[in-house]
Amino acid sequence: MDSKICQEMRYTVHFYPDDVKVVVYAGTTVLQAAIDASIYIPSSCGGEGLCGRCKIIIDKQEVLACRTQVDTDLEVRIPPVLDRKRLAKKRVVLPIKKQGLNPITKKLYLELPFPKPGDNIDDLYRLIQGIKKECGISPSIEFPIIQKLSKTLREERFKVTVSLLDVNEKPTIVNVEPGDTRSNHYSIALDIGTTSIYAQLLDLEEGKVLAETSCFNPQIVCGEDIISRIVYSLKPGNLKRLQELVVKAINEIVEDLTHVAKIEKSDINQIVVAGNTTMIHLLLGIDPRYIRESPYTPTCNFIPPVRAKEIGIDLPPYAYIYIIPSIASFIGGDITSGILASKLYETQELSLYIDIGTNGEIVLGNREMLVACSCSAGPAFEGGGVSCGTFATFGAIERVRIDRDYEPEIETIGGVKPKGICGSGLIDTLAELLMNKIISQNGKFNEDLKTKRVRKKEGGFEYVICWKDENDLDHDIVLTEVDIDNLMRAKAAIYAGISLLLEKLELTLSDISKIIISGNFGQYIDLRNAHIIGLFPEVSLDRFEYIGNGSLLGARLCSFSKDMLNQTREIANSVTNIELSDNPRFYDEYLQALFLPHTNMEEFPGVSEKLKKRA
Amino acid sequence: MDSKICQEMRYTVHFYPDDVKVVVYAGTTVLQAAIDASIYIPSSCGGEGLCGRCKIIIDKQEVLACRTQVDTDLEVRIPPVLDRKRLAKKRVVLPIKKQGLNPITKKLYLELPFPKPGDNIDDLYRLIQGIKKECGISPSIEFPIIQKLSKTLREERFKVTVSLLDVNEKPTIVNVEPGDTRSNHYSIALDIGTTSIYAQLLDLEEGKVLAETSCFNPQIVCGEDIISRIVYSLKPGNLKRLQELVVKAINEIVEDLTHVAKIEKSDINQIVVAGNTTMIHLLLGIDPRYIRESPYTPTCNFIPPVRAKEIGIDLPPYAYIYIIPSIASFIGGDITSGILASKLYETQELSLYIDIGTNGEIVLGNREMLVACSCSAGPAFEGGGVSCGTFATFGAIERVRIDRDYEPEIETIGGVKPKGICGSGLIDTLAELLMNKIISQNGKFNEDLKTKRVRKKEGGFEYVICWKDENDLDHDIVLTEVDIDNLMRAKAAIYAGISLLLEKLELTLSDISKIIISGNFGQYIDLRNAHIIGLFPEVSLDRFEYIGNGSLLGARLCSFSKDMLNQTREIANSVTNIELSDNPRFYDEYLQALFLPHTNMEEFPGVSEKLKKRA
Repeated sequence: MDSKICQEMRYTVHFYPDDVKVVVYAGTTVLQAAIDASIYIPSSCGGEGLCGRCKIIIDKQEVLACRTQVDTDLEVRIPPVLDRKRLAKKRVVLPIKKQGLNPITKKLYLELPFPKPGDNIDDLYRLIQGIKKECGISPSIEFPIIQKLSKTLREERFKVTVSLLDVNEKPTIVNVEPGDTRSNHYSIALDIGTTSIYAQLLDLEEGKVLAETSCFNPQIVCGEDIISRIVYSLKPGNLKRLQELVVKAINEIVEDLTHVAKIEKSDINQIVVAGNTTMIHLLLGIDPRYIRESPYTPTCNFIPPVRAKEIGIDLPPYAYIYIIPSIASFIGGDITSGILASKLYETQELSLYIDIGTNGEIVLGNREMLVACSCSAGPAFEGGGVSCGTFATFGAIERVRIDRDYEPEIETIGGVKPKGICGSGLIDTLAELLMNKIISQNGKFNEDLKTKRVRKKEGGFEYVICWKDENDLDHDIVLTEVDIDNLMRAKAAIYAGISLLLEKLELTLSDISKIIISGNFGQYIDLRNAHIIGLFPEVSLDRFEYIGNGSLLGARLCSFSKDMLNQTREIANSVTNIELSDNPRFYDEYLQALFLPHTNMEEFPGVSEKLKKRA
Repeated sequence: MDSKICQEMRYTVHFYPDDVKVVVYAGTTVLQAAIDASIYIPSSCGGEGLCGRCKIIIDKQEVLACRTQVDTDLEVRIPPVLDRKRLAKKRVVLPIKKQGLNPITKKLYLELPFPKPGDNIDDLYRLIQGIKKECGISPSIEFPIIQKLSKTLREERFKVTVSLLDVNEKPTIVNVEPGDTRSNHYSIALDIGTTSIYAQLLDLEEGKVLAETSCFNPQIVCGEDIISRIVYSLKPGNLKRLQELVVKAINEIVEDLTHVAKIEKSDINQIVVAGNTTMIHLLLGIDPRYIRESPYTPTCNFIPPVRAKEIGIDLPPYAYIYIIPSIASFIGGDITSGILASKLYETQELSLYIDIGTNGEIVLGNREMLVACSCSAGPAFEGGGVSCGTFATFGAIERVRIDRDYEPEIETIGGVKPKGICGSGLIDTLAELLMNKIISQNGKFNEDLKTKRVRKKEGGFEYVICWKDENDLDHDIVLTEVDIDNLMRAKAAIYAGISLLLEKLELTLSDISKIIISGNFGQYIDLRNAHIIGLFPEVSLDRFEYIGNGSLLGARLCSFSKDMLNQTREIANSVTNIELSDNPRFYDEYLQALFLPHTNMEEFPGVSEKLKKRA
């Protein structure tokens, strides 16, 4: 058999526990096969064999999926990492006043005069004049509406509801419905993160959140972080695939939200999206290649409204997507949105805004100046790169206390059996391990403890947070030395970013009146523990403010208010981006922060005190 | 066999001379079968059995296609009426100065600076800034361009040509191409009439006509005039079919023009269309129903630019259609276009603009006022409703002289064998028949002449213009008494319209300094003959001006000039429409004009004199 024929042989790869089969050509890597089958295998180097994270089990052997080629039928077991189930939906009522509502898509009810002989007025002019009379503007109109206009106007005897896209340049009529439909007017707020997507369905007439949901960003099957996704997108067809994956997830979210809230998709008039620059490029099918190449140029930071249907979202043609503008390649619209939501840009006092997602972004400023930087923290605090990490979903361990006998006490989201540890649980665990001397300040395990909770495995030491028979998995929930390394690297990057930003502006912590924390950690982070591990500067706890998912919050505010949406453009234009990757001082600061809480213990006097007491 | 099964029987209808077969259900009318097969059968009542024009031959019997149901396999012969072949294409160079060109779609060549580290400028902003620097405007951009922008910019090292849609409200970038493509920049001017479509391919860089063509409006298979097309459109699916028919014709025209001129379709950036209000509604798939119902309300007179692709025209997504605005339901954009082309709206002196197409429209005015009316003249001067009529194509008889022996002398377009008679030929024939006393002033044949040219047939008397063996058909070319009736009705409607318009404005012919004639008659009308038959008022010949197809001429001017295109909106807004159908005085005037040249011979003193001399 010559090699050509050989290459055309095809084999079946059977993935467990998903129980999904895929047929691939001989020579395909298992990682590629998994991508083809939409099966998630952790990976962050774009399949280059560098990150060592795409471990799978074939014939009881652990191998790397990206380095293993298919040359026979295979049974592949993927070690459990993340729970891919959705967060439960809940119904929340926000305290937003109805009279304050001013969404960019407006509904206007009109009772137009009937045509009369000799008045020589065509239907479209009649409509435009009616709008002008009502609110003084003379809008343009989308073509497909004209096609059906004569019938629409006459259906309810010239009583119609007009949907207006109220952009500054020239308002546009995007829909005309017979009768009065003002009460059916909804928006979706979306936060599209590298790891997960959060969504809320909003009632634009009442100013309420009707439903919310979240899911993994299904693009993670193609790479876990921004860089590996961009690398993945470079091959032919892959950009399209990335776009289709996220659009499919959004379509499912739309189905879920409308089902829960019992509303019609045809009444959704807008989507407001916040996301990092790369996620927005991928959502819109825009080539992200130059984001990654120096001088790190995005195709666009500000994007005009895009018809949802145009990118494959299953909504009516009059539903538009408004993208919250980005600031730079690595400071995205999610940060702009968070700056809006936190009111950072409005206050006299200086504040520090810290967003912990798959990356860490830091903004320092007030109403006079805004400076931002991005630190490659990695997704550890979102549960990524941590063996039993998960994001803040039902069953995630979000609180951990360890007693003098080294036994943990845990709380999970929803109070159900544990499935993994989320950000706040990881911070707690790390802090408790340190305070109980189970690990040292450089993150290494104390090998002399008399407890079954600390044990040695092939990969090194680990601490068992939850035994297999107490959880919902087929293995113990542990925190390994490798996990601790990842968490320390993440917190060091964030702390170094903060230090450098202050240094650049010749400021000290005493100049900062408020530290605003944004992120999806489950419940609030235990700030005492965040101090113990040196994630945040040790300042008085009352100077901290936690706003939850700032990106989603900003998208919600922009859904309700055109003025806020316009404000985001001003914010994005006014933020100065500081590139840390070029800065040697950043690496110095980073190395100093690779210690619990920090090499320079003077920066953490309170934690030093506590550690001494425990000694 | 019960009736249900019977209805589901299917039969083949074989049409001659087209040699086209179509299979239809039992009970279908032959007219419907012809429509299904895209075979043209004359008809003007929408298949209601009223007009009696859809005559066909089955088993040597003449029957009406709309009244004949298919209940067996049929062989149907359609009597020859119109030549459906295209006009030959010719190359013309217009005296338009290059420096005067200012089309609404502009091409702009830019050499942008390269991105530099730290400049923090995204690709889109770089492009917009480049345009702003070049011409001071800050345009918006269409979404699909953004998707590919980063690649496009880098293909020729940040040298690009931008296509800008230069509308007043907000200029829009509709295309970005690598390198300098300014010299490839074309437009199509279209005149879409009820009976025929005329088109020119224009070079927007050089200001030249590169090619021209024309064809029948294929919608005539669904009804010959506006009203029967609207009636046809009311049934489900028919509006779509009407749209598809005209779009298909336009796509063929685009193919022909680009083939002849050897240019790429991708370099066509715009189409400028002039047409009557109903044709525009049908082209765009807009329901025309209320044009026909009192108070005669069109959906819209002014239509914003429409993406050609959106209505099925096979051009790139950046090619837009600009529609010259209509004035009212029965005074369309073809008239607006003609007013522009004739400069009627610019002069101090009063002029009369007469457009003879499938209807006759008359405009009276100057730069201070414009008044218009539409007279239901019918398509006789376009060759419609005349047994051997044709439109001005190769082989059409366009000049006729009849000598004392009643023998005709004829000239055809292109000098080839005759195929039918076009407008100018019909006017000549009618005038010569009258002057030679072959017919009387009321259009009836002199039955006592000694010539084989006048003969009696089943339908009445007729004059043979060309014997079968001298032409390209399988029958003699004749003008029948019924044809003469149709021509007299058409000319009477136009003359009555002129009279009434003058009366309404309390003016006389002496107040009019110019009479501008627009229409496709082949060569120029012989105005002496037009006077003899009483088509136009008898004023000095030097007050007449013939501008050919005014509608197409205006569309061409608007292709080259954004200012002219904008002017058409002002023109359309300033024209007052006078509805003749409600006016009893119109009917009086019409009846008086149903004579050759006119019942009131005092209005035609010159013709009276000539007739006396011949007596």
